[in-house]
Amino acid sequence: MLFTSELPLGDGVLEREFTLGEIPGILWTPVSASVSAPAPLILIGHPPLGLRKMYPRLAGRARYYAAEYGFAAATIELPGSGDRPRWAAAEQARADLRRAMRAGEPVGHEIVDALVLPLVEEAVPEWQATLDALLSLPGIGGPVGYEGGVISIGIRLAVVEPRISAAGFFAGSLVPAAMFEEARQVTIPLHVLLQWDDEGNDRQAALDLFDAFGSKEKTLHANLGGHTGVPRFELDTGARFFARHLK
Amino acid sequence: MLFTSELPLGDGVLEREFTLGEIPGILWTPVSASVSAPAPLILIGHPPLGLRKMYPRLAGRARYYAAEYGFAAATIELPGSGDRPRWAAAEQARADLRRAMRAGEPVGHEIVDALVLPLVEEAVPEWQATLDALLSLPGIGGPVGYEGGVISIGIRLAVVEPRISAAGFFAGSLVPAAMFEEARQVTIPLHVLLQWDDEGNDRQAALDLFDAFGSKEKTLHANLGGHTGVPRFELDTGARFFARHLK
Repeated sequence: MLFTSELPLGDGVLEREFTLGEIPGILWTPVSASVSAPAPLILIGHPPLGLRKMYPRLAGRARYYAAEYGFAAATIELPGSGDRPRWAAAEQARADLRRAMRAGEPVGHEIVDALVLPLVEEAVPEWQATLDALLSLPGIGGPVGYEGGVISIGIRLAVVEPRISAAGFFAGSLVPAAMFEEARQVTIPLHVLLQWDDEGNDRQAALDLFDAFGSKEKTLHANLGGHTGVPRFELDTGARFFARHLK
Repeated sequence: MLFTSELPLGDGVLEREFTLGEIPGILWTPVSASVSAPAPLILIGHPPLGLRKMYPRLAGRARYYAAEYGFAAATIELPGSGDRPRWAAAEQARADLRRAMRAGEPVGHEIVDALVLPLVEEAVPEWQATLDALLSLPGIGGPVGYEGGVISIGIRLAVVEPRISAAGFFAGSLVPAAMFEEARQVTIPLHVLLQWDDEGNDRQAALDLFDAFGSKEKTLHANLGGHTGVPRFELDTGARFFARHLK
């Protein structure tokens, strides 16, 4: 893990860009964290729209977590997005998805599978390698949470990565049927957001996915509004969920 | 409103029992509240199981609200329950309900209507009279919230009582069809709890009711578990909801 920039954000939060092999990422840490008092870590996932485009939203969350709750937070560029090499199959699947959505057609299972399953296969080992590197840094340690988009990546991580103790998901309906099966194997505490009037997501599919999770502690927060309309106060309810489970 | 007892609970919270005409009730206030800094008020509704039986749960909530958030809180005995005169029609409807539930039969609309609609008609004016009396006390004022059980009473109050600014409901399915129509007229911010595996409530009916509310700001918190299994942390998320809207 190679740090390429270091930027104090104020509020006692340090932002560092890094690369891990060819994967770019960003790490936010509370400067108060130390070897004797390591910060819990939250991995912040996001849709494959490119880290630069997602930066304001990601940095806003991470800074809040670090400043208000003393969490470290990190994110990485997904394979095939941002400045990383394009990926022909994923590009094709995304084009198919956009065409279907523009035409108002239902998005077929084969499009969802082609879009999501290879991404899960590629991204999960990258997240795990990132986790290895992050947990070897001084001042980061203890329990790990995962939150955010591409819920299928989060589901797989929750199943295969025992270092992840809790997860906050955004319920989407672009979830391959195979991931519903994996969802039953998830047992860590979950905090799931659902936008009640999400244009791009089917409400019933999202409720079915929540129902499928095998976790004994799972909470669904459904709010009125569209995909991008998650109320501001949910940032803090998510942080408090992690505070309950990562301390 | 006649105070019949006064009990300091510690944590700076005072509990007073009162009667308003023939209605018994309990008021909890933070001793810090004053005429110049009046406490917002939360009306705590509960199922018609009798105030004495519900006391530990009600007092636990009220004390938390008062000690942690500086809210006043009050509850009253519902007509026909506790030590109040029995009500033949309601007794009959409750017996019918118990019989249907014991037999594992679906609870018919006529039972639900007979159980709930007269209760709404009687209880809502009583809550309003209680509100008149409470708001005339020194140290109580400002915005009012309603929370808790018999969701149909809460729905009617939210529609007819403009002094109520926000409501926290427990989503149940024993809701007369007529109340679904009234739910569409509710416009205040809502915080709705749903127990995902509630034995006595139909999940889809509860989701339909959440969908029906006309409020622009409404949040559903669904948690795994049965009717009485609401996680402890939801007490604070509810308090924070009121803190956002009653300040």
